[in-house]
Amino acid sequence: MKPSAIDELISQLKDSERSRHALARVISKIENRDNDYEELVEKIFLASLGKATIWGITGPPGAGKSTLVDQLIRVLRARGEKVAVVAVDPSSPFSGGAILGDRIRMKEHHGDEGVYIRSLGTRGIQGGLSRSTQEVCWALEVAGFDRILVETAGVGQTELGILKLAHSVLVVLVPESGDSIQMMKAGLMEIADLFAVNKSDRPDADRLVKDLLMMMSMKDHDANTWFPPVVKTQAFNGFGLPELLDAFKRHEEVSVTTGVRERRGAHALREEVAHILRDWLEGSIRDQFQTSGGKDLIHQMQARSISPLEVAKMFSGKR
Amino acid sequence: MKPSAIDELISQLKDSERSRHALARVISKIENRDNDYEELVEKIFLASLGKATIWGITGPPGAGKSTLVDQLIRVLRARGEKVAVVAVDPSSPFSGGAILGDRIRMKEHHGDEGVYIRSLGTRGIQGGLSRSTQEVCWALEVAGFDRILVETAGVGQTELGILKLAHSVLVVLVPESGDSIQMMKAGLMEIADLFAVNKSDRPDADRLVKDLLMMMSMKDHDANTWFPPVVKTQAFNGFGLPELLDAFKRHEEVSVTTGVRERRGAHALREEVAHILRDWLEGSIRDQFQTSGGKDLIHQMQARSISPLEVAKMFSGKR
Repeated sequence: MKPSAIDELISQLKDSERSRHALARVISKIENRDNDYEELVEKIFLASLGKATIWGITGPPGAGKSTLVDQLIRVLRARGEKVAVVAVDPSSPFSGGAILGDRIRMKEHHGDEGVYIRSLGTRGIQGGLSRSTQEVCWALEVAGFDRILVETAGVGQTELGILKLAHSVLVVLVPESGDSIQMMKAGLMEIADLFAVNKSDRPDADRLVKDLLMMMSMKDHDANTWFPPVVKTQAFNGFGLPELLDAFKRHEEVSVTTGVRERRGAHALREEVAHILRDWLEGSIRDQFQTSGGKDLIHQMQARSISPLEVAKMFSGKR
Repeated sequence: MKPSAIDELISQLKDSERSRHALARVISKIENRDNDYEELVEKIFLASLGKATIWGITGPPGAGKSTLVDQLIRVLRARGEKVAVVAVDPSSPFSGGAILGDRIRMKEHHGDEGVYIRSLGTRGIQGGLSRSTQEVCWALEVAGFDRILVETAGVGQTELGILKLAHSVLVVLVPESGDSIQMMKAGLMEIADLFAVNKSDRPDADRLVKDLLMMMSMKDHDANTWFPPVVKTQAFNGFGLPELLDAFKRHEEVSVTTGVRERRGAHALREEVAHILRDWLEGSIRDQFQTSGGKDLIHQMQARSISPLEVAKMFSGKR
């Protein structure tokens, strides 16, 4: 794709008549890391304003995240906001299968240009998924979405990396879920800005609320800034949704005044730079070992006549 | 530590009278990434011959891996071989707690200088644990252990990375474990050179053996080289242990003649070089963003007057 073709694609992104089609093309280019991908993403970044708000939503499977997200879409649409959802599944190697799921979820919002839902799967690249998610968010912003919900399941390092690009993170739990304690351990307690206790009509909902408040009170908090609220919800009928939305908005306000929002934005930008440099490094290592000189260095290491440290110095130009 | 102190530590490693004490010091330096760590590891690497054989042993929790490893130690000791065990747990942030476990496991081999058991926990560094494991293996080789068992649980990316440094990989499963299919999915089927169906006196053991053989036959194999055998074991009484050891030795022989062993060794060396370069890169990114110039670049990115791609080029010296 020539530079002019990239510019054309970006102007389509901005054009509400054609943005949906352009988004599909751009996101698949980001997922596939096409040749012109770096240049495309750079132009998308510069065309974005960095004003979009990203909410991260996570929780164990079966907690009702998708239903809750659908309700959030409904409430936000009623307030006139455009909403995009990026559903990220690091355990799925391809997004192909998820596309069908996207269509089913989109059905409810059919014909509503203010809603966009897209799944992303991993491409097996370390850290690749959080990079792609960030870049898709910029493309969505250029296409006019200034409220983006990033939905992810699980508690692995990858998921935590993805959630770190959000401005506010909601952890969804259910009363009967024994996972809650497990999730706390796995770092979600560190990252949660809000909790939803979903299916709150079930027994033990109040106990989970109490447990969460107690756990959070044991954490170090600056009491003057933010204490993660716990909201009881019932996603299937919308119970608690206004309260949840209010909690999100309050976190947004507090984040702006305390500088948390700016710090998280800065972190996301530093991470993007780091992702680019890491990808370049992996490519350069691969290339250097494929030359005959590189293959010879492996033999020399096997014979213990040179060390990995010396080879690393040679590759990095340190000697 | 001065260069001479490092040389002294390495000569202690080689001295059977003092190697146990030196090993403890060296391994804790590797875990803590002390200042002189790179130089120490380089000298250990050059002092090793690269002839040690590393066996990887993995499987779901409760499959009886530790008991099986203890039986392997017993059988190998009976044949006069020195055996070291590195028990790696990526889910544990510190190895402190595991040290107690090491002592309990060592009790059985108390006073036997031919056995060494050590746990390693993650330090939170991406890929850091497989680097440490490799380096600990070199130290063990210098200390005279030429048979090293790397024991790991779980099926995450980290565990698979660690298993890739082994010359032969054993996957331990149990009949009643519903995990087996799950493990296959998670990439263990790709990495397994041998299977043990442990607790093979239980019902369904034969069905699991059959299932495994069927699954492996559906994989692409070069029929002339190696088809992963499935050995029935009962770790608690040693049943099947001679057969398991034979299977390991046969895999070792075949690996040498087919060049698989050399390829895996080369992979481990390439990975060590890559780990060093990745760590340097992370340090350099951190440092560059901490300068006032780096902080200014973040503000410029926030204002969209410069892109992450341009910053990455500046950091890497590409412009």
